Formats: sequence, structure tokens, C-alpha cells
Amino acid sequence: MSMEFISVRDAWKVVLDKALSKVRLDRLTIQVHKSLGYFIADDVIAKVSYPKRNIALFDGYAVRAEDTTSASINNPVALRIVYSNVIGPFEAKPINVGEPLPGGANAVIPHEYVNLEGNIIEALKPIEPHANVALRGEDVRSGDIIASKGTYIDKFLYALLLRAGLNEIPVFRRIRVGILTIGDEIVRDMNLYLTKEDVVYDITSPLISASLTTYCDVIDLGIIKDDESAISHIIKNVENIDVIITLGGTSLGKRDVTVKVMEKEGEIIFHGVSIVPGRTMAFGLIHDKPTFMLSGFPVAAFVQMKLLVEPYVLKVYNAKIRVFPILAELSRRISSTIGFLNVVRVTLNKQKGKVIANPLRLRGSGVLSSISLADAVLLLSEDIEGFEAGDIVSVYKKEEPWGFAYVEGDFP
Amino acid sequence: MSMEFISVRDAWKVVLDKALSKVRLDRLTIQVHKSLGYFIADDVIAKVSYPKRNIALFDGYAVRAEDTTSASINNPVALRIVYSNVIGPFEAKPINVGEPLPGGANAVIPHEYVNLEGNIIEALKPIEPHANVALRGEDVRSGDIIASKGTYIDKFLYALLLRAGLNEIPVFRRIRVGILTIGDEIVRDMNLYLTKEDVVYDITSPLISASLTTYCDVIDLGIIKDDESAISHIIKNVENIDVIITLGGTSLGKRDVTVKVMEKEGEIIFHGVSIVPGRTMAFGLIHDKPTFMLSGFPVAAFVQMKLLVEPYVLKVYNAKIRVFPILAELSRRISSTIGFLNVVRVTLNKQKGKVIANPLRLRGSGVLSSISLADAVLLLSEDIEGFEAGDIVSVYKKEEPWGFAYVEGDFP
Repeated sequence: MSMEFISVRDAWKVVLDKALSKVRLDRLTIQVHKSLGYFIADDVIAKVSYPKRNIALFDGYAVRAEDTTSASINNPVALRIVYSNVIGPFEAKPINVGEPLPGGANAVIPHEYVNLEGNIIEALKPIEPHANVALRGEDVRSGDIIASKGTYIDKFLYALLLRAGLNEIPVFRRIRVGILTIGDEIVRDMNLYLTKEDVVYDITSPLISASLTTYCDVIDLGIIKDDESAISHIIKNVENIDVIITLGGTSLGKRDVTVKVMEKEGEIIFHGVSIVPGRTMAFGLIHDKPTFMLSGFPVAAFVQMKLLVEPYVLKVYNAKIRVFPILAELSRRISSTIGFLNVVRVTLNKQKGKVIANPLRLRGSGVLSSISLADAVLLLSEDIEGFEAGDIVSVYKKEEPWGFAYVEGDFP
Repeated sequence: MSMEFISVRDAWKVVLDKALSKVRLDRLTIQVHKSLGYFIADDVIAKVSYPKRNIALFDGYAVRAEDTTSASINNPVALRIVYSNVIGPFEAKPINVGEPLPGGANAVIPHEYVNLEGNIIEALKPIEPHANVALRGEDVRSGDIIASKGTYIDKFLYALLLRAGLNEIPVFRRIRVGILTIGDEIVRDMNLYLTKEDVVYDITSPLISASLTTYCDVIDLGIIKDDESAISHIIKNVENIDVIITLGGTSLGKRDVTVKVMEKEGEIIFHGVSIVPGRTMAFGLIHDKPTFMLSGFPVAAFVQMKLLVEPYVLKVYNAKIRVFPILAELSRRISSTIGFLNVVRVTLNKQKGKVIANPLRLRGSGVLSSISLADAVLLLSEDIEGFEAGDIVSVYKKEEPWGFAYVEGDFP
């Protein structure tokens, strides 16, 4: 009736070692129009240069920058307005934003920097070569790599892929994660929840599902009672799923059947991780499938997911992910559970240009408010006893992949 | 042939003054299951308390904390194991995580802090009242406001609403934003783009659309040529749209027809805002509909949208939005266009526990890479000449509603 706790970083090494190769991701060729939310599977090469020619970024006059070198308000330089395809010395051609520069021109003077006198403009100050011009290929250059393997396709990259002339790109298929909720007391019927004392509405599975949907296809495997043979039946028969997450039943009580069943169906690699909240997590290869056994409590499950499941799927995609902390001043002293990685939920406030982090007093693994009200998390490593009021700490917005930064050692 | 530029903050005052009351948002009652992405329209009251009773957060023994006051490893306190519904002095009842505490008990001792000796446990250290217990109503309390008007429903609040026993909630209907792309040269046909010199693939509308979709229903009104009567026809006949965004044609060139047409169809309130990039933006009430006329260039349009359109829709929802900066050390000197709000795109890197901001050299309003590659933006107000290398600056992740923080004056 006791549990050994391994550190999150050791757990991570084990997960990588045992499970990284278990998910084989085929490459798909998909239309860029349908590519949001996928990861690039091979370096992508631009097919066109953009801009295709040097173009004006402002309305004004296309000029030769060198003609304006001596221009000033007291000594304006006169340039003759022309409408030809090529301009010569001391000539200027009216141009609109977005239009290609005429031959000979290398800069654009905006309207407000000239006086217009009949068919002459007076330049009132010197202009640098290439000023107010987007140069051919400045944005993307044909033949260049514009997105490398492992890059997540967000709306900015999506737009860049189209600009680079791509219709189709290679991506990894999305990882398929099945979520199975385990527990006699869990219901999805609001009337039952409102009227019976001993039932709990299922909120952990939608929370975990919505979190992983950014990167994965999440399949709801439903709720199942604490019944060993029923769980065993489901686990034997899942199809078309790469990774299994179970929620609930990872403790050591009589009703905590999850780990007991999984031991019979496969190999439990660890049970117990030194995280607060969330120490009862287990991990194994069940029928050779990576299986993360998380708590039924929403906050514990969320923390376990952020620290080990999200980093795992990101690693399978070979993802390039960067996470940056917000520096904040701690509003009050906090103490840590020594030997555990403490994930403290904090709200943030601005005061006189500083960001203040207020640790929430609600710290239970079952207290959903502690993550719902929080803006960010503060991680206290195993060997840190706590922080004092006024200490400057690094916090991470709760939705960011902060667990990936932690397990990869990329941590302040 | 010139333009007056008003400051972003003045533009914001005008937008609020002229347009805030133009969009009437009905309240809908919707199922919580379908509520992700809506804003709460009325304070929401919890229907149940959760936990419903005091429950154990760990496996162990339910005890009376006061019995353990003198416990230590050298002087353990003996407690007798019982299985009754109420415990008395120096009794302990085995309990599993999630189970309600028996009467009389007010704390849980985890297994690892006791020695088990037959039907006696020895407590090895004192335990505080309520330790390892989630108290009745600690998470949500029946009758309390659990979400106030203007709160955005993300996955955490979604879970909390279900926990609070809610089936249905009042929300504002989503604002309907129509996006009309204007320009002879804009195409959505990749073959045309790859083969013709003078065409531009439409990337601005998907970028703006994907950004606003978080808060609004976005309706694509298509691409239309620089043809005054055709634009006028569309604008007269839009139905079921609250806010119009046009992309392109806001400059002063011959082909820049957008503002010319809109002047005939309604009232242009400003044309020209002191932003770099993005100064050619216009705003008006066209057929009494708030109409934001943005640049056709993707970066300019993105900046204009973040600074004035996104804050406007958030204000219509009466949204409670909090944005926090990342403090970073500037890698090199940057200078500003004086008199303009400069939105500089930066990449971030971690070095020796510090975050370093590297301003991208690609600063043109047409250079999509400058926002695609960027991690964050750095805002230089009108009166700031620039920053030196090594200066500590506040930057905002590019996807955050940083424009709302800026126009509302909530800015470092």
C-alpha cells in the first residue's frame, strides 16, 4: 500500500525511451487550405519569389535615391515628373502603393515629403536607396526553405505558404488519442448530478480533450465503471488509436482498478510521479500502445497532461516549440512540498508597470477553480523550498506548453 | 493628395463614440455543451456546491486532526482503525481518494505518514485540520456567482460551468463580421498566381479572418475588383452582418477606390492613423454600419485589426480581457518613426535565463515574414525615439489582444 515517486524528468526519459518509437506517423500530402493545425513533415521550398518585382510601399513618386542626396527644406531638389517605364537622372514617376517601380528607380518618396509645382516635384529631404520599397524576393524567395520539418501550421505560416506559391504540402498525419474515463461515480447526465449525492459530473475528459485538440485528433472512448473485465475488454479492442489516456482509478484504493487491469494487459513502467498536484499518475505500454493513466481529478489530470502527455505528442511530431516566461513579482510567500515538482496556480495583476503573481489559496487537485481562475502557473522544482513575497519569479500562461519547456530542461 | 493621421488612442475614442452602440447583441440561452467561444451575457449562479461533501484528496486514513498534535517519529500517536460512519477520539477510518469523510473526521493522513500495526495505525507527525481534504463547496458554492458578464468561455470555464450544475447559460450572440477584399490584382487561383506577374494571392483575408474567428463569426464576402459601382452594390446589399471589414484600396492612388466609394455610401470618420505599419486605415459608418477599411497588405492589416477592430469587438461584448507582457532584453538598437505608434516585430530567444528580443529587420507592411517569423510585438509610442541595445522592454505575444491593452491605456 505505498507508491514510489519518480521525478518528472526521469519519467520523461522513460517515456521517450520506451514510447517515442511506438507511434509511426505517415506523411500526408494535403492542400494548404486544409493544413491549419498540422505539423510540417519535410522542409518546404518556396515556388515563387514575393514580391515578384520591387514594389512601392507608399503612394508617392518613384525616384533615384542618389538624386536626392543634397535635398533639404531650404535647398529642395527639383525632379521632373515623367510617365515612362524607365526614369532617368532627376526624374520622378507618380506611383501608387503596391505598384512595381519603373526601371532606374530605387526608392519611393511619399507625397508628404515633396512640393508639387506643375510638372516638377521638389524633394525636401534625402531618401535612402530602397526606402519605402519592398524588394523582389524580400518576403519569400523561390528555392528557399520557408518552413522546416516539425513546424506547426498556424494562420501566419498558412498565409506564408500560400504567398510562397504552394498548393500542397507534406504534413504528418495527426496523432489519434483515445480518452477513456473510468469510475462508478462519473456521469454525463446533469439531472443525475443535480439530484444524487454520490455522483460527479464528467469534466476531466472535456478539459483534457480540449487541451490536446490543438495537436491531436481526440477520440472519446466514453465512461466505464470500475469493472476490471469491462476495462480490459475495451483496452483489448481499441482500434485506430495511437495513444491511450485513462482518467481515474490510479490511486491505491480498493476501487482504483485502472493500474491493476493494465498490469494484466501490458507493462506498467512507472506508477507515481513526484508532482503536486498529480502524484498518482502511471504510464505503460499496454498491448504495446503508449498509455498514460491520469488522475480523475481535473487539476491533477491537467498538470499530468501538460508535464508528460503534451510533451510526448510534441516530441513524436518532432515539434519546434518555444515557450517564454512572464517575469512577475510574488505577492506572498509560498512554500513547497519538498521532493516534488509543485505546480502552483497564480493570478496575475498589473500594478505600476509591474506584473504581480498572486498564488491561489485553493490548491487541491480536485479544485477546478484553482486552474479556471488562474492566469498562469509557477513551477517549483523538487529542491526549492519556496519563495518569499517580493521575489521575482518566472510564470507561464496556463495554456502554453510549459511542460515541454520543463522536461526538455529549457527552464529559467 | 495628402492625409491627416490621428493617433490610435484618438481613433479609438472616435470608434467607441460613434460605433459602440451600433451593434445590438441579443442574449441567447444555449447549452453549456455548445458554449465554447461565447461571452457570458449575465452573471451565472452556481446551482450546486462542489464538493458536495468533505472529500479525501489522498488515499489514507480519515482522522481528527486534534488527536495528532503531539505526534512525531519518536512519539507516534496510536489510532484505532474503525469502519463506522462516525469516528470518535483516537480513531481512524481507512479512506480512498474521492470518498467523503466520515462524521467526526476533519483531516486525512496519507498512507506514507503512518505505520500500520494490526488494527492500529501510528501517526508519525501532526496533521493540520482540513489537510488533504477538499471541503464542501470549496470549488463552487451553490448560489455564488461563478462567471460574470463579459467572461469568455474557454475550456476551463466550460468545465467549471458543468461542475456548478449548469445545463444552459445566457450568452451574447456572436458578432457577425463580413470581410470584403478589394483589388483588381487579388486572386485565389494558385495557377494564376504562379504564372502571371501582376497578380497577388489573397492571403490578407484568411489571416484577418482566422484572427477574428476566436471571438466572431466571420463571413467571407469575396474578392471584388476596383470598380466603384460593384463595391457600392455589395455594400448596399449586405445582410445579416454587424461589422464590415474591407481589405485594400485605402491609399490615395487612382486605383484606391474603397474610401471614395464609402464616402458616397456613408460617413467616413477618419482616414489615416499614425501607426507604422498601417497608416492608411479608414473608419466610418456606412449605411449606419461600423466599417473598418484596412490595408490590403497583410502585416498592415493585421496591425490595424489588432489595434482597433479586435478591441472594438471585445468592447461590444463588454469583455473582461487581461494581457500581460513578457519582459525582454533588446538585442540591438531600434529607432522609431516619430509621431507614429511603431509596431515592431521581434523574435524571442532564451539566453542564460534571460529572454532576448531580436527586432526583425524586415519591417515593410507587405512583408508577411515579418509577422510570420515573429514571436511577439514591441510597441513604441508616438513620443519614443527608440530603444538601445540592452534595454529591458515589454513585448506581447503576437496572438494576444495587445491592441486592447494599448487603447485602454493598460500599458507598461
